[in-house]
Amino acid sequence: MQTLQTRLAEIAERVNTALDALLPKPQGPESELMQAMRYSALGGGKRLRPFFTIEAGRMFDADEGALLRVACAIECVHTYSLIHDDLPCMDDDELRRGRPTLHLAFDEATALLAGDALLTFAFELMSEPETHRDPQMRCLLTTGLARAAGASGMVAGQAADMAGGEIDSDLIAVTRMNRLKTGALINFSVEAGAMIGCASEAERTALSRYAHDVGLAFQMRDDILDAEGVVRDTGKAVGKDKDRGKVNFVTVMGADATRERVTMLAAQAKQHLALFGPRARILLTAVDFVVERRY
Amino acid sequence: MQTLQTRLAEIAERVNTALDALLPKPQGPESELMQAMRYSALGGGKRLRPFFTIEAGRMFDADEGALLRVACAIECVHTYSLIHDDLPCMDDDELRRGRPTLHLAFDEATALLAGDALLTFAFELMSEPETHRDPQMRCLLTTGLARAAGASGMVAGQAADMAGGEIDSDLIAVTRMNRLKTGALINFSVEAGAMIGCASEAERTALSRYAHDVGLAFQMRDDILDAEGVVRDTGKAVGKDKDRGKVNFVTVMGADATRERVTMLAAQAKQHLALFGPRARILLTAVDFVVERRY
Repeated sequence: MQTLQTRLAEIAERVNTALDALLPKPQGPESELMQAMRYSALGGGKRLRPFFTIEAGRMFDADEGALLRVACAIECVHTYSLIHDDLPCMDDDELRRGRPTLHLAFDEATALLAGDALLTFAFELMSEPETHRDPQMRCLLTTGLARAAGASGMVAGQAADMAGGEIDSDLIAVTRMNRLKTGALINFSVEAGAMIGCASEAERTALSRYAHDVGLAFQMRDDILDAEGVVRDTGKAVGKDKDRGKVNFVTVMGADATRERVTMLAAQAKQHLALFGPRARILLTAVDFVVERRY
Repeated sequence: MQTLQTRLAEIAERVNTALDALLPKPQGPESELMQAMRYSALGGGKRLRPFFTIEAGRMFDADEGALLRVACAIECVHTYSLIHDDLPCMDDDELRRGRPTLHLAFDEATALLAGDALLTFAFELMSEPETHRDPQMRCLLTTGLARAAGASGMVAGQAADMAGGEIDSDLIAVTRMNRLKTGALINFSVEAGAMIGCASEAERTALSRYAHDVGLAFQMRDDILDAEGVVRDTGKAVGKDKDRGKVNFVTVMGADATRERVTMLAAQAKQHLALFGPRARILLTAVDFVVERRY
């Protein structure tokens, strides 16, 4: 795990530096907008999605500059989704990454617009020539990001999550909702690394399965932390889902069964990496991080 | 003007048919999300931006299929901006295109997510191979749309508009705000047609200047309608800006001076089209439509 922590920290630092350079600087009458974008995009976070993109790409010796810019675009989409998810009309959260949520630090209108701007910025970053010399690759990455983020991916998952108790609340429905809400973007994070690295079809399939299992295990761990975690560790409110009558893996299966399933998914995720041999060492240890994390 | 009304109607119908086919169908637990996207995207509207893209492209015999898909992507961005702009934390509007705004027809969370999904969908549309055979062109269009829509374009304008009275309220500030809030996307609408039509540098410059003047005249006319229009014609509440203490062209210059400037801009816009001769006939009459419209 030591190596993994080092890699996570290295990637987080690179992403922070790159985003700081890429994001628009506050200026003019709309300077609050840029300040708000920076407050959220540079306000910490595990940078797990950039980690997946960069480490997946490194297995194929992909260009580091391309990986970093694509990772930044994905992180902008992730950040926008947290901002909008925290708004009063959604989860109405007060704490995120250990600080006040954006609409409390600024105001609702600014938070709404900063989320919109970060989402838009992700597609600007992705489609620019600096990201990759081949425009065909940039188009594929842009389409992939849009599909993972939009009405057939993350936004659909958020909508299903809001519909929540009104609809099916069995394990199949919860699994599907999470596959969309967090799974789709985690999947694309890994896939983007493989695409930039020109991985073979077989390699992409194996990585996609790995991402699927890690994504689900990640969300289950999130639900366990929500049920049992402490605010000091997670940097956000805990016990939220139960208080709101929301369904999640723990409310549907109980904590013990969820933990068992996390263990099973973790083993399965590792098996999908067998194809890559020692090259997959970092992605292998990432599985343990995901299932053991306290934040 | 007869020809223009026919063209506007023709393009509106093509855009409606295309969007109906392209937008995701309502299904699953998140079906309300798709219904909401369709409520707004298929709920009328002048389709002025698609008109600009398609008619600009037609001057250069650009591929009609490409023009239509790009026009649809731009209209999705415009629709998302109206949805988010109408939300309670923004303008808190109740009426849009003669019907209840999306957050009243559905709810705030669904409106927020439908806006997010339409914005994301625009980039999916733009980057897909069906839009244009050349990926380089698709990348340029995607980047252009993102820049027009994001923190250096439309969203910046909305943020400046919200900051409103707190900042400068002179003519320069109001002009700048409008250039960002509505001008940037109108500009891109025209530019996209020219790009797809492979217009020359001189032609693109002339069209960009045309779009600049038409965009400003359009917004001034909007402010006159807000001050003097009737709900029956505009399909949205009137007198809003004054009631909210917001600055616009009419509050800054008065209605008469605004009208004079509209006339001046209209003449100037037409001059920029001289370069194209009779090919520019439709774009020429569009100027009169923009400055005379009652809705």
